[in-house]
Amino acid sequence: MHASKIDLNCDLGESYGRYTMGEDEEILKLISSANVACGFHAGDSHVMRKTVSLAKQNNVKVGAHPGLPDLAGFGRRKMFISASELKDICTYQLGALNAFVRAAGMKMQHIIQHGALTSMAENDKSLGRAIIESILEVDPDLIYVCLPGSYIPEMARDMGLKVAMTAFADRAYDKNLRLVNRKIPGAVVHDISLVTERIERLLTEGTVKTLDGDTVELPFDSIMLHGDSPGSLELARAVKQAVQNLGVEVAPMSEIL
Amino acid sequence: MHASKIDLNCDLGESYGRYTMGEDEEILKLISSANVACGFHAGDSHVMRKTVSLAKQNNVKVGAHPGLPDLAGFGRRKMFISASELKDICTYQLGALNAFVRAAGMKMQHIIQHGALTSMAENDKSLGRAIIESILEVDPDLIYVCLPGSYIPEMARDMGLKVAMTAFADRAYDKNLRLVNRKIPGAVVHDISLVTERIERLLTEGTVKTLDGDTVELPFDSIMLHGDSPGSLELARAVKQAVQNLGVEVAPMSEIL
Amino acid sequence: MHASKIDLNCDLGESYGRYTMGEDEEILKLISSANVACGFHAGDSHVMRKTVSLAKQNNVKVGAHPGLPDLAGFGRRKMFISASELKDICTYQLGALNAFVRAAGMKMQHIIQHGALTSMAENDKSLGRAIIESILEVDPDLIYVCLPGSYIPEMARDMGLKVAMTAFADRAYDKNLRLVNRKIPGAVVHDISLVTERIERLLTEGTVKTLDGDTVELPFDSIMLHGDSPGSLELARAVKQAVQNLGVEVAPMSEIL
Amino acid sequence: MHASKIDLNCDLGESYGRYTMGEDEEILKLISSANVACGFHAGDSHVMRKTVSLAKQNNVKVGAHPGLPDLAGFGRRKMFISASELKDICTYQLGALNAFVRAAGMKMQHIIQHGALTSMAENDKSLGRAIIESILEVDPDLIYVCLPGSYIPEMARDMGLKVAMTAFADRAYDKNLRLVNRKIPGAVVHDISLVTERIERLLTEGTVKTLDGDTVELPFDSIMLHGDSPGSLELARAVKQAVQNLGVEVAPMSEIL
Repeated sequence: MHASKIDLNCDLGESYGRYTMGEDEEILKLISSANVACGFHAGDSHVMRKTVSLAKQNNVKVGAHPGLPDLAGFGRRKMFISASELKDICTYQLGALNAFVRAAGMKMQHIIQHGALTSMAENDKSLGRAIIESILEVDPDLIYVCLPGSYIPEMARDMGLKVAMTAFADRAYDKNLRLVNRKIPGAVVHDISLVTERIERLLTEGTVKTLDGDTVELPFDSIMLHGDSPGSLELARAVKQAVQNLGVEVAPMSEIL
Repeated sequence: MHASKIDLNCDLGESYGRYTMGEDEEILKLISSANVACGFHAGDSHVMRKTVSLAKQNNVKVGAHPGLPDLAGFGRRKMFISASELKDICTYQLGALNAFVRAAGMKMQHIIQHGALTSMAENDKSLGRAIIESILEVDPDLIYVCLPGSYIPEMARDMGLKVAMTAFADRAYDKNLRLVNRKIPGAVVHDISLVTERIERLLTEGTVKTLDGDTVELPFDSIMLHGDSPGSLELARAVKQAVQNLGVEVAPMSEIL
Repeated sequence: MHASKIDLNCDLGESYGRYTMGEDEEILKLISSANVACGFHAGDSHVMRKTVSLAKQNNVKVGAHPGLPDLAGFGRRKMFISASELKDICTYQLGALNAFVRAAGMKMQHIIQHGALTSMAENDKSLGRAIIESILEVDPDLIYVCLPGSYIPEMARDMGLKVAMTAFADRAYDKNLRLVNRKIPGAVVHDISLVTERIERLLTEGTVKTLDGDTVELPFDSIMLHGDSPGSLELARAVKQAVQNLGVEVAPMSEIL
Repeated sequence: MHASKIDLNCDLGESYGRYTMGEDEEILKLISSANVACGFHAGDSHVMRKTVSLAKQNNVKVGAHPGLPDLAGFGRRKMFISASELKDICTYQLGALNAFVRAAGMKMQHIIQHGALTSMAENDKSLGRAIIESILEVDPDLIYVCLPGSYIPEMARDMGLKVAMTAFADRAYDKNLRLVNRKIPGAVVHDISLVTERIERLLTEGTVKTLDGDTVELPFDSIMLHGDSPGSLELARAVKQAVQNLGVEVAPMSEIL
């Protein structure tokens, strides 16, 4: 077995006011780390407190999931913001969530940026650096959850952060370990048996098959699940089942790194 | 002399994006405690960082100034929010500001709620309790800055908070130590010599003359200045001068309580 | 039969960005008048265009449903805004929706204010007058949809507006024709056979039984349905069926007044 | 003389809530066309009504100045929004302003997009087309105010709109009639005598000198003034004086086209 322990993470707390999104209560039974929205792209102060509380009840570790200030676009529309603006909105959101986590008697475990922030940062080193600086100033013990295929994990480690690599069970990769654009056929894997197969390959061999059919090594500490689209909960359960069938222990990333 | 030390506080960091408000740089030369807006009624993450930095440069202590989620109304329009909603938006804002304060190597000194929150809380004990609970869960060492004339200071002390009483140099009081409504003639004192006289009376005797002409004792640890209306800066300078002329030391409230 | 024609109206277009609310497509098959959110308490410009388009496809008339500027509170939290502020936010929202309605080759039929605005206006004549003035300045031909039990319908007629009275099939009334507070047991009627019975009484006799058991006359031109809570769609279908079983024609309010 | 009449336009109504921006009352004495913010990047419903009223008092024509939904960034941060999103937010804003203009007994004269929307549209034809489609569906008689140097004026004319070209008195052009980036030295002209000279050249010969020193023809119907930065009001007055000294009549663009 390539891995004896694996973290399962998922975006949560994306409801807002009277609007609900995601099956948080069900997903929390499956995962070990929750990425909690911080009120900019989704979530609000009431949802944040409730989500942290639910995570605690389910023995799930909490991380911050900061996003762009764009509720209407759910943080998925790139915005031309400066590095200092990005650093500031990250620090603001990390601080806000931290207050709820500490009030619940917990400690923030990790941070993973949301939506368009990832490709913005991957394409502009000043933005990636801004996120890392924000993490360092808020809490240098936070684990920064990264995707492979960009300069970011290395820069984060160089600047002193612990980094956890997350993999996707239901998304195709290219040979550079980048996620294939959702618009390309085959980019999103909906078939449960295929997803299960991918999980098995990843956990036993540490590899994925790219969209082009090559087999490449994929560094990972965690697998990202989804709970906010039709069928995603079923898929998440299948991933959890596949992991357990392999005898791999599900554990929060702080116990793996 | 009634008091040998006095704190001077002022609301700051109320600019937003390209919009500027208040003469923060000038006011910071006069005060010992800054009440920094937290992004709901005013301020944004960039303004918050900048304001904290300016406060540090001027050796001024930083406190949180949370408000209603109503930028258009500047937090001055009462909203019917529940106690749990109020607690949550306070915790969110306190946490957000705290991140910037800690990033600057400082510690939050105090908290004072903004605008309509004060009268909302004074008229509904569940709301006052919500603010106090929020302070306690974020940082029980924070000093809660209160006005006289309501149940709030006592409840706060009973629940374990340190309380600082703030007085207004330019606002008339009634016999119950409540601020007279701004719409009533004489409620706001614009005349510098009158303000100076009120400061002298307060610092030497510990009293104010009410709008009705009675002399009443006014508990105070701090005096609130203003920097966001015409003439307010001049008035603030006069207050500072009057305090210094009396030989009273200006010091942050954490050194007074 | 007391009425030969009846309008059925429902709040629609309350989704926002990636957040969905209400079963608009199903409800549109049942109603004759749609109250479309205008982007303040709910809805956004994209949802507005889509909702207007869906209404047109279903041969449903469109009206404006302006609300308080409080997405987080869904416009249900009273805010202390002035009459001129209220007039301005109504005119803004009416104008915005009007652009989409006219772009679709339609004409706005009516307006009904949302959420907390109703009780705010019922308790303050300056606010009711502000709404009416806004309607008059935007389009004096708009029908103002009112509830019984307050001064508003009379003031609206006196100021020159056409008024349509709306009744609720699933809400209890008191003897003053005011809706009983939702917190009081029996205020909301969930039982379909009871709702059907109320519809029959209303359409054949023009009366309702109050919560206290009295029978009172209830003026009405329209019945408000709901599509945003569990079971509401089923209830709406039952109301439509009951109306049709009585041989009463469902028609937009503009064909009834 | 190249031109016997010229329009002078300026962005107005950019205050928000308690935040003020721009010297609208002074600028309105100078101009013939006001570009009024519509509540997304700046302005709110109350500011819109007041600005329209002030324009009317000063006999100034009103146009819409729609922007990105980004108050914090003042609509100057590019956002990756789709063509249909852009069309919808334009229609929403045009409709909202139109309601205030019609309530004042006036008619909207023109539209000019704000901030980052211009370069976004210049670089993506689907976005330019979206703005034009929005104008056409709201009011095909609106004049679309364009800058030279892109495909937009021609597409607008081809699609049936009247187009007014606006020039800048205080900004340098390149040989393709594009504004030189503000970051490049010489891009912004602060010297009043230089601005006056540029106005004279433009009005008498119809040309500008580019930053490289070439003389090129510049199509124009209007000159854009500014009122929101230090010295801008003085510069605006100088432009007005220069125009009048040349005996050129200042008239709204609708009287020129």
